[in-house]
Amino acid sequence: MQDSNSVGIVTPQYVHIDKPLELRSGSVLSSYNLVYETYGKLNAAKSNAVLVCHALSGNHHIAGVYADIPKSSGWWDNMIGPGKPIDTNRFFVIGVNNLGGCHGSTGPASIDARTGKHYGADFPIVMVEDWVETHVQLAEHLGIEQFAAVVGGSLGGMQALQWTLDYPEKVRYALVIAAASKLTAQNIAFNDVARQAIMTDQEFYGGDYHAFNTYPKRGLRLARMLGHITYLSDDSMAAKFGRDLRGDTFSFDFDVEFEIESYLRYQGDKFADLFDANSYLLMTKALDYFDPAAAYDGDLSIAFKNIQADFLVLSFTSDWRFSPERSRSIVKALLDNEINVSYAEITSSHGHDSFLMETAYYHQMVQAYMHNIST
Amino acid sequence: MQDSNSVGIVTPQYVHIDKPLELRSGSVLSSYNLVYETYGKLNAAKSNAVLVCHALSGNHHIAGVYADIPKSSGWWDNMIGPGKPIDTNRFFVIGVNNLGGCHGSTGPASIDARTGKHYGADFPIVMVEDWVETHVQLAEHLGIEQFAAVVGGSLGGMQALQWTLDYPEKVRYALVIAAASKLTAQNIAFNDVARQAIMTDQEFYGGDYHAFNTYPKRGLRLARMLGHITYLSDDSMAAKFGRDLRGDTFSFDFDVEFEIESYLRYQGDKFADLFDANSYLLMTKALDYFDPAAAYDGDLSIAFKNIQADFLVLSFTSDWRFSPERSRSIVKALLDNEINVSYAEITSSHGHDSFLMETAYYHQMVQAYMHNIST
Repeated sequence: MQDSNSVGIVTPQYVHIDKPLELRSGSVLSSYNLVYETYGKLNAAKSNAVLVCHALSGNHHIAGVYADIPKSSGWWDNMIGPGKPIDTNRFFVIGVNNLGGCHGSTGPASIDARTGKHYGADFPIVMVEDWVETHVQLAEHLGIEQFAAVVGGSLGGMQALQWTLDYPEKVRYALVIAAASKLTAQNIAFNDVARQAIMTDQEFYGGDYHAFNTYPKRGLRLARMLGHITYLSDDSMAAKFGRDLRGDTFSFDFDVEFEIESYLRYQGDKFADLFDANSYLLMTKALDYFDPAAAYDGDLSIAFKNIQADFLVLSFTSDWRFSPERSRSIVKALLDNEINVSYAEITSSHGHDSFLMETAYYHQMVQAYMHNIST
Repeated sequence: MQDSNSVGIVTPQYVHIDKPLELRSGSVLSSYNLVYETYGKLNAAKSNAVLVCHALSGNHHIAGVYADIPKSSGWWDNMIGPGKPIDTNRFFVIGVNNLGGCHGSTGPASIDARTGKHYGADFPIVMVEDWVETHVQLAEHLGIEQFAAVVGGSLGGMQALQWTLDYPEKVRYALVIAAASKLTAQNIAFNDVARQAIMTDQEFYGGDYHAFNTYPKRGLRLARMLGHITYLSDDSMAAKFGRDLRGDTFSFDFDVEFEIESYLRYQGDKFADLFDANSYLLMTKALDYFDPAAAYDGDLSIAFKNIQADFLVLSFTSDWRFSPERSRSIVKALLDNEINVSYAEITSSHGHDSFLMETAYYHQMVQAYMHNIST
């Protein structure tokens, strides 16, 4: 799995934040853990730090591999490494698992020290703004006062955007990729079907499935199958699977039959074994709630009035989950505020997942943009 | 519910077809029932019969109302009636519940005379071609040798198309609305998630839920919620629901919160109480299997070589389930065969459901087309 420009073997690190976090919901977490990874070296001026925020099912393991674990490359390994678009020879790159996640940071599947039991349904709902607060604590822990850049795709892009709103002086550049300033009714509708699949699973037990030694695998599997359809484009599914059958003829039963069914069910099964259902609910809700313009009567231009960072906004032509139109509205609101923004609509057939792909023009754009950031 | 150009009070009729039906799957049904309704009068020459085929969740009750049942208008009541686009003053219109359905025709929820139990999982899978065969039997029962027109939207349009392929001399005009000549991988993927929702419901019992006095309501509800998203357009959902909340502020829990969630869950609940889960599986599979070009190496133009009917093909600009592009490929293949085809892409924001809406230009197109059909 290692190439010459990989960051190589990496090890996750932990920080315990022993400072109460007041969430936007009004709930308070008295303390929490964050798991994170770093790649490259923080320079003496501490001016070369890049925070990479993850999307719905992502985590802190962005680049490199784990010792002795084959196929353990980070989810954005094609983007981050020595000589790669986000160049670890120049930048100190940080990945962090978001609060409420299920990969090491405190979340619903963690043990609540107060009760000695899993948080389960008691874990509070978190918003993108809350994540930014936790990132601030991590930055403080690492001695970073200002990020050279905050970067993210999809829900990660929303966090990068929120960073520039809440801490304008702490972000020099924001890279907002395949994102949107809010979900549409259709986006929310898909999320709700996914949540209902999980919550109506008889093994869900109102979120306290840990106490019953079970988990809502069927529901989480369906949620992922559905999500996966929205990450791909119609064209990419047609090119990859079309109407191909697994066998030679119709089976005239309801077993797996078309290749696309096989693929989706496999993706659903794999995910349901790895991810926590309560975390999935939380992450989708954070997506639904995100809407920085809401406090300004829906006027994104006014919402952006305090932004100081420069922006790179990227969208992908075949992304129907967060279409280019959604990115353009972000760019428009940035331009209304005379903010320095670069924008590109990248031709790609891979749908929303394009932001994870190694498309030459896309990577060149990021590389060039990052190259111009002084450290 | 009655307007001056309603067909008025209607009564379903039944026919028992006591002739074995050899299905494309190889299974044989020794006999079966069909429930149907008719509107208008069959003329002496029996030349004014119009067959209307229904879509996934439709049935035989297309127009008029049932005596003493409020809000019982047929699903295409805006299209069919005296003076309406399909004018019952001129045409004898027939609606039939398809075999495998759950509204009166023999289907999985029917009692199998051989066993005295519900068919359940034993009901064979049916294809669009099989439905055409059952329609032929109904036509024979009614003494109709040739239809003035066969009409349908969505899956109904596929049946109208199949009619012209299997019985070219028995259809003078085909109206194929918001349809496609085959499903895409994405279409199949959505269907598979819906089926998996039903089949992984613990109350499904491999399709034999009747025997356990239960039914997979959770799964069917999810299937319908998901389906519903694909019937609407992003724009129509945005216009109708946007990001509107039911309350004043975020609730920070997983109860119903956005208006779109409320709407979808209501639709899902309502449907799950009325429809049979096994029928839903069958109908989606008939959709997946439909592909008249498959026997001709995917060449639709060759598949259409024996068509004799004239065609009206209609699509809707915001339909992303079966986009205008899909209708255009049907039109192209018809033109390749020098078939008389009229085509329109109708501007509508209602997505796939547009074919059920009373859009003026759409109805005028159908009215004008039907007007030119001599009886």
